[in-house]
Amino acid sequence: MQNFDFHNPTRIIFGKDTIKRLSDEVPASARILILYGGCSAEKNGTLAEVRAALGSRVTQEFGGIEANPTFETLMRAVEQVRSQELDFLLAVGGGSVIDGTKFVAAAAGFDGDPWSILESIGANVSRALPIGTVLTLPATGSEMNNGSVITRRETQTKLVFMSPHVFPQFSILDPAKTFTLPPRQIANGLLDSFIHVVEQYLTYPADAMVQDRFAEGLLQTLIDIGPKVLAEPQDYTLRANMMWVATLTLNGLIGAGVPQDWATHLVGHELTARYGIDHARTLAIVLPSMLRLRKESKRDKLLQYAERVWGLTEGSEDERMDTAIDRTQAFFESLGVHTRLSDYGLSADSIDVLIEQLDRHGMTRLGEHGDVTLDVSRRVLEASL
Amino acid sequence: MQNFDFHNPTRIIFGKDTIKRLSDEVPASARILILYGGCSAEKNGTLAEVRAALGSRVTQEFGGIEANPTFETLMRAVEQVRSQELDFLLAVGGGSVIDGTKFVAAAAGFDGDPWSILESIGANVSRALPIGTVLTLPATGSEMNNGSVITRRETQTKLVFMSPHVFPQFSILDPAKTFTLPPRQIANGLLDSFIHVVEQYLTYPADAMVQDRFAEGLLQTLIDIGPKVLAEPQDYTLRANMMWVATLTLNGLIGAGVPQDWATHLVGHELTARYGIDHARTLAIVLPSMLRLRKESKRDKLLQYAERVWGLTEGSEDERMDTAIDRTQAFFESLGVHTRLSDYGLSADSIDVLIEQLDRHGMTRLGEHGDVTLDVSRRVLEASL
Repeated sequence: MQNFDFHNPTRIIFGKDTIKRLSDEVPASARILILYGGCSAEKNGTLAEVRAALGSRVTQEFGGIEANPTFETLMRAVEQVRSQELDFLLAVGGGSVIDGTKFVAAAAGFDGDPWSILESIGANVSRALPIGTVLTLPATGSEMNNGSVITRRETQTKLVFMSPHVFPQFSILDPAKTFTLPPRQIANGLLDSFIHVVEQYLTYPADAMVQDRFAEGLLQTLIDIGPKVLAEPQDYTLRANMMWVATLTLNGLIGAGVPQDWATHLVGHELTARYGIDHARTLAIVLPSMLRLRKESKRDKLLQYAERVWGLTEGSEDERMDTAIDRTQAFFESLGVHTRLSDYGLSADSIDVLIEQLDRHGMTRLGEHGDVTLDVSRRVLEASL
Repeated sequence: MQNFDFHNPTRIIFGKDTIKRLSDEVPASARILILYGGCSAEKNGTLAEVRAALGSRVTQEFGGIEANPTFETLMRAVEQVRSQELDFLLAVGGGSVIDGTKFVAAAAGFDGDPWSILESIGANVSRALPIGTVLTLPATGSEMNNGSVITRRETQTKLVFMSPHVFPQFSILDPAKTFTLPPRQIANGLLDSFIHVVEQYLTYPADAMVQDRFAEGLLQTLIDIGPKVLAEPQDYTLRANMMWVATLTLNGLIGAGVPQDWATHLVGHELTARYGIDHARTLAIVLPSMLRLRKESKRDKLLQYAERVWGLTEGSEDERMDTAIDRTQAFFESLGVHTRLSDYGLSADSIDVLIEQLDRHGMTRLGEHGDVTLDVSRRVLEASL
């Protein structure tokens, strides 16, 4: 096991009818900016519940944070926070809204160019406004971590920052708030969760027995519930399990003390930035080819994955690994998600564009061994056509 | 899944050569009381490392905190903190030292009779001194939770308190610090961890899929490493896995959103309080009989445990449950721990004494259904003779 630090101070308030708990968690004197995305939070009544729970507190609102939240949009929220002297940020939505809120929290009191927060991966953040979240879309784990992914529209650049100052103080997770989500977002959330685990698990053995068991437990749960969550959208138990799994995939726990990959995410980010494909779907496109191409360096963990997650014990080692990857891809397809670039109208021409972007963003040595060069990424994308 | 709150702000600093990190974690201006147990922390060099890492900070020391730390001993530490105006507590040891330090932290600034902290189960604690820990004995999980068990010697009473104010700010977990532990303490730590999980897992189904998977992963890991940890005392990997598992068994994670039992612990506490048997060994004595007697109310989870943890899929349901309980008991014995009262020199005479204590301490309706009456506890103890 590698040495690690684990620290996650976010309070999770989980369950039915928990939005009212806002009245305990947000200071009575707070001057609050409520941040949200499109109109679903308004239409499904979540915003009304939030406003009611906040009572007579001073609140303003900032709507319209887009999927893959942009620097350009968020800087308008930063201006609002500054000019109105707001001091508490409440994100109501999914990962995009929460990621965006983290950026606003860090940028509002930042001296200098806020884009440098992204360029420094958060290293230059020394304080941030307090954040609370009301999660409506289980997927990214942003509700219980200190990471954020922001896109700069003008340059089609998608970058990550992390800072201990942007952990949400609390996150309210009411699974019933997911009943109205469209199937596409549920499928994306399941995929996103699954591949978060894979990035932290399918690397090489590090003698981290319990991290492996936990990762396998998360994957098994996702496989157990996956198609059912889509088929039975009003099933509280299924949604509750999906929601808690999604949080646990990226709260630092299964990644503590183990090598991590993230090449699939970083290649996928370019697909979203350039072609606007949903984040989770980019992962579903990239991952199967990524695993096939890197089978040798991931052999030991792929075999463990084949046995413990998919129950594969028959056949040669190569057969088991191939079957496990095939099953993984079939699982993605069973959620209604296509897994080839051509399914999204992209042809070989796009690959040069994507490789150029990876190069420009310094993504030239990815993965747990740093051996996913631009050439490897090119072959992965070619195999995903 | 039941509604739950999960909040655990303790920073874990895990790995080789991490005691030096104290210099980052403890404020330079802190006036520190270092609390420890017997002479092992001195003999094995841990205290010397701690002193070196704290550099020129003001430190005092308080040694001699016993296993099952007593109110009487700890009140002397409280006096020292008060009279010397100390403001930071650093526990160096295992669960007893850390539990004791939590009590000192809560009692030092407490107005009124500090014993009432225990009697109110911590409800009357409104503040506490900051705590850091250097863990040397993986077992109780106290390094990453807000619970503490304290014994009053004069009345042979063992009580629990919990307070959000006594979470350690940080805990340093260096697995190499466990190399010098006697086998008895390692066996106790493995047992304690195992039974912590059982108390939160072997109840009734609550549709908490990932909590179940995590609990099973912890149990599987303990079964995998158990005898090896004892046989290979210098194996860093085994000790690292044991240490991290022990922390994860009782940091709130696997208990979030599920029913919990704890009857075995509460009956066991009386055995320790009256007869001085090691805490973990009392659990090993009580648990097998407790599971056998409550087989019907635990049927669904016992069958799941039999299949997923012990791989038992053949035979009738009752056979599988019986075999799983037998294997559990055999696992305890494989760690060199005896599992019958008679192994500890106790006969039927002791049972009246223990039942009287349970009655006096209000332990009359234990377990996840509140159906472990004094009569059930009596039958459990009789079956454990």
